[in-house]
This record gives sequence, C-alpha cells and structure tokens, in this order.
Amino acid sequence: MTITDVSERKLVWPQTAHANREPVDARFDRGSAYVDGAFCPIEEAKLPLLDWGFLRSDACQETISAWNGQFFRLQDHLDRFERSLKRLRMESPEPVDRIREIVHSLVAHCGYADAYVQIIMTRGRPPIGSRDIRLCKNRFQAFCMPYMWLAQPEAQQKGLSLYVSKRVRVPSVSVDPLVKHYHWLDFEMSLLDGFDAGADTVVLVDANGNITEGPGFNIFADVGGKLVTPATGVLDGMTRRTTLELCEELGLAAGGGNITEQHLRQASEIFLTTTAGGIIPVTSIGGQPVGDGQAGPKTVLVHKSYWSRRTAGWLGEAVKYGS
Amino acid sequence: MTITDVSERKLVWPQTAHANREPVDARFDRGSAYVDGAFCPIEEAKLPLLDWGFLRSDACQETISAWNGQFFRLQDHLDRFERSLKRLRMESPEPVDRIREIVHSLVAHCGYADAYVQIIMTRGRPPIGSRDIRLCKNRFQAFCMPYMWLAQPEAQQKGLSLYVSKRVRVPSVSVDPLVKHYHWLDFEMSLLDGFDAGADTVVLVDANGNITEGPGFNIFADVGGKLVTPATGVLDGMTRRTTLELCEELGLAAGGGNITEQHLRQASEIFLTTTAGGIIPVTSIGGQPVGDGQAGPKTVLVHKSYWSRRTAGWLGEAVKYGS
Repeated sequence: MTITDVSERKLVWPQTAHANREPVDARFDRGSAYVDGAFCPIEEAKLPLLDWGFLRSDACQETISAWNGQFFRLQDHLDRFERSLKRLRMESPEPVDRIREIVHSLVAHCGYADAYVQIIMTRGRPPIGSRDIRLCKNRFQAFCMPYMWLAQPEAQQKGLSLYVSKRVRVPSVSVDPLVKHYHWLDFEMSLLDGFDAGADTVVLVDANGNITEGPGFNIFADVGGKLVTPATGVLDGMTRRTTLELCEELGLAAGGGNITEQHLRQASEIFLTTTAGGIIPVTSIGGQPVGDGQAGPKTVLVHKSYWSRRTAGWLGEAVKYGS
Repeated sequence: MTITDVSERKLVWPQTAHANREPVDARFDRGSAYVDGAFCPIEEAKLPLLDWGFLRSDACQETISAWNGQFFRLQDHLDRFERSLKRLRMESPEPVDRIREIVHSLVAHCGYADAYVQIIMTRGRPPIGSRDIRLCKNRFQAFCMPYMWLAQPEAQQKGLSLYVSKRVRVPSVSVDPLVKHYHWLDFEMSLLDGFDAGADTVVLVDANGNITEGPGFNIFADVGGKLVTPATGVLDGMTRRTTLELCEELGLAAGGGNITEQHLRQASEIFLTTTAGGIIPVTSIGGQPVGDGQAGPKTVLVHKSYWSRRTAGWLGEAVKYGS
C-alpha cells in the first residue's frame, strides 16, 4: 500500500460497529464493573469516598479496547499497568493473571463486540485518624462500557478543530507522565477554553512552549515531510506506539521530537492517536485550516491501515465470551 | 503577650480533645457523610466510579474544622468554596445556605466537639457514550470525621523532621493553586521519598527552586528575623491567613515572600500551618536541627495564641447540635 492508493482522501472503516452478543443479564446492557471483588452493572459501581484514589488522585489506570471481539495489545496494557504500579509503589491485591481474566469477564458480562475497558488501581485509605500513606491497602477496580469514540466517525470524516491551550500540561517534574494518571484539571479547564473558542478539542504545551498531548490522546504532525510526535512529557500512548510501528511498516518517516504551535500551524497534516477512536484527523487549528482542510493522505493511509488490521484481529486476543 | 512570656518553649494546648455528645445513632460514631442528598455513616459513603471527580480529578473541596463545638471561619471557607466553584466553572446543586446547614448537621450526627469536615464538589459525569464536559451535572458530597491531626500533639511537642523534595509542586500554570484541588500525586510520591529519608513530612519546590507547600499545609520560616511564607504557587490556606493576622496582632514581622531550601536550612524557626492541627513546629530539616532543635519562641507564641483563641471560640460559629 502506498500513499497514492489513498485517492479519495476519505476515511474508511471496514465497519464502525459490530453486532453484540446477549449480555449475561439485562442489567449489564449499559456496561459492567468489577468492584470489591465482584461484578456489577456499571451504574452501580462506586468507590469509597475516603479512598485516596479520589481524595488525593493517587491512582493509575489502563484503558483497553476490544474491537470485533478482539482485545488490542492486552499484554502490553497489562505490562504498562504493572510498570505504573511499580512507579507509584503500589501492590496489586489481584495477580496480573487474575486481572486478565477480569478484563475478559467484564466484556463477556456485557456481550459487547466493541468495548472500552478501564482497569484502575487506587491507593486505598489508612484507618480513620491516620494520614499515613504506608497504611493504605491498594484497591483494584475496573469497568467496561461500549466502545468510546473521542469523536464520532462522522465528525472524524470532517476532521476536528484543535485549540492550542496556553495552559501547561502537568509537568513530568511533578507527576511521572509514564504513569497513566488522573491529573486532568489542566485538560478539563483547557477543554472549556477550547469550546469557548469554537474548537472540538485541545492540546497543551510544556513550560518551554512545546506541544505535549491532549485529553486522552497523543498528537502527530507532518512537519517538513516527517510525522513528528512529542517525545517527552507525554504518556507513551498505546495507539501512539502502534502508529510509530505502522509508519515504519508503511515506509512513512515518523518519530519523536519537539513541535511548537508554530509547527502545527505550518503542518500539512495533523492527527490524534487514542484508544478511544484510533487515528483521528485534525483539519483546523486555531481557526485556520490544516493543509487543504481535509484529512491528509498520510493520515488516511495510517487510519485505513490501523482499522483494517484491528478488524482482522491484529495484535489481538479473542474475548472469552464463555459458552 | 510578648515573646519573652514563652519561657519554657513548650507547646501548650488548653485541651487536646473535648468531650463529645452522643451521636444521633451509634452508626455515626466513626463519622458521617452526605451523599446523594442524604446523610449516612462515613464508612458507607461512596462516589460513582464514573464521576469525573475521580476519573479526571475534576473536583474541589474545603476542609473545615470544629473545635470545642465551634466551627472556625466557616463563612470564609464557604466563600472560598464558592470562589473555587466559579474558577472551575461548576454550579452547585445545593445553595450555599443549604451547604452550611449540611456542615452543621454532619457534625451534629456524630456529636463530635472536635471535628474535621470536608465539603466536595465533583464535575459529575456525562451520559455513557459521551465525553462532553458540558453535559456533566456537578455533584455535592461531604464527610465528617473526628478532628484530624497532621501530627499528634506528642509528635508536635518534639517537632517534625522535614524533607525538601526535589519534585516540583503541580504548578499554577497547569492547575490554579487558589482552587483547593486533589492533584496530590506529587505530594504522595514525595512523602514516600521523605519517609525513606527518615523524615516525618515533606515540602515541595517550584520550577525555580523556591519552596511552595506540603501535603495539606503551608510553611513559615524565620528568615533574618521575619516570618516568611511562600507568596505564590500555593493555596491561600485558612490557617496561613489566620497566622498572618495573628502575627500582626502579636507584633511579629511576617509576610509572603520567596524562600529556598537554603533559607530553610538557615532559618532559626520553621513551622507548618494547617486546618489539621493548627501550628506545627518543624525542628529538623534534611537531618539537621532547625535553630537549637526545639520549637522556637515565635512558634510557641503563635501556637499558644492560636489554640487559646480557638478554644474560646474565636472567629467561631457554634455547631447546631440540635436539642
């Protein structure tokens, strides 16, 4: 496949949804969760108010997708989750093999072909009267909902408009960006600023003015013929990693580097990478079109390549729906 | 009262705990909470797992203490809570007057004379399938537990050992420090580092190496005869504010400024200010004694002044325990 194959510059999904199986119980039709060692309908899932995962945002997570009944890079997600736990000095009350089974079972409870799963470790809490972090017993919980799109396929076809926030992404000197954490107030407030400016989503800078990442995605820009994605101060996103691997296979020059807002404004193509939607074109930035204002040829190529492979079960592990 | 009155350099509390009333129900003896519009025992209080207050740490709070049946600066806390809501563009589902009643009722349920209350607003969540922050309905919740000491009175008498973390406090260019938020992973990991170094607690720096704050407290240091507390990038703590006011009354030079780790190492006195314990002496830093290794005379004076006034109901509002 070469770039010239992408004649129409139109995003194509082999399919944007697959037929679900029946849930094990109608109560699971909106999603499932695993809390306190048991499965429950997602709407019933709760966290103790005193858990420091909430009161101190002392938590980490992995977001895993299934597509057409296949988890994507499940082992890589579990490996990264273990790495995050180690970096936060947490100990899982559940062995990793058990977490794998829980992830399968969450999807099986709902019967979803296309699913969005989040596994979460929180610090837990010390006994009332203590503030000693060392007395906390870490807690595991997880949930599954239907596959989540950062932007719906129709919106992706048009391409997103991006706002470059003046806010600085919580820096790596404060919080380890290699841990998938919940420190998102910078993203949240930037989103509100971006909406005010008429944009669909936002990207934040670092203290030096370099672009970092947005709420739930990494970014790629075609700068001078090479697809560049910020190299530091960002999450090592699974779809980012996948995109770099795909580019290598497709013979597209790509790699990590520094990009500024100025680079983005001059880029011929920009796209976002996320577990919640894959490869998502950005067609305007700060109100100005990116390139000719349509998804660029490299974007379309990577998108096509990503989705055809996902549908075929690439790097997949079949969901165990049970009999 | 002058500094020379403090002859013994010993912390004195008028009392370190007061007799409680009976809880309205034995289930409230460990604490109370207000969730989903109803009161419940604290151990039963939960947050929906999908609330962005957790999944995005999109929340703000106020921590309010009662001492000897008197709330301290309750109106100031409610005012600051309203300011935080505005800065986060949240809308309270409960009018402020109702929140005041809830705070009273939380303590009344437990019967505590000395109480620690937290009022919390979370972003809420959008419907499943959406990621639009504008569709979130903000949620109010609160809890009450027995008065919490950052360090027990006996430990305060000895004074705390402080560790200066190399981590940078989540900066104000990322998250508004005037909002009392839950972005605490920098504190949490610094605490673990500090414990490894044998310290009791930690303080973090900003990107320029200036001291900021620690987990739940502001800091004051006697630098060249003046009590200095970091002026920027920190929460406008209620006990910090109170201490500055007290210093003015007591004729102690005090104010906001920049202090570095070097300043702390040269300081003749250091203390922490917090709703969870008031004025707390630091007697060693990085393993070296502060001054002569005992709570300094200004520290003892401010401490004495703070606690005698608190006990007398200074800036207080009597808890409505009901009949």
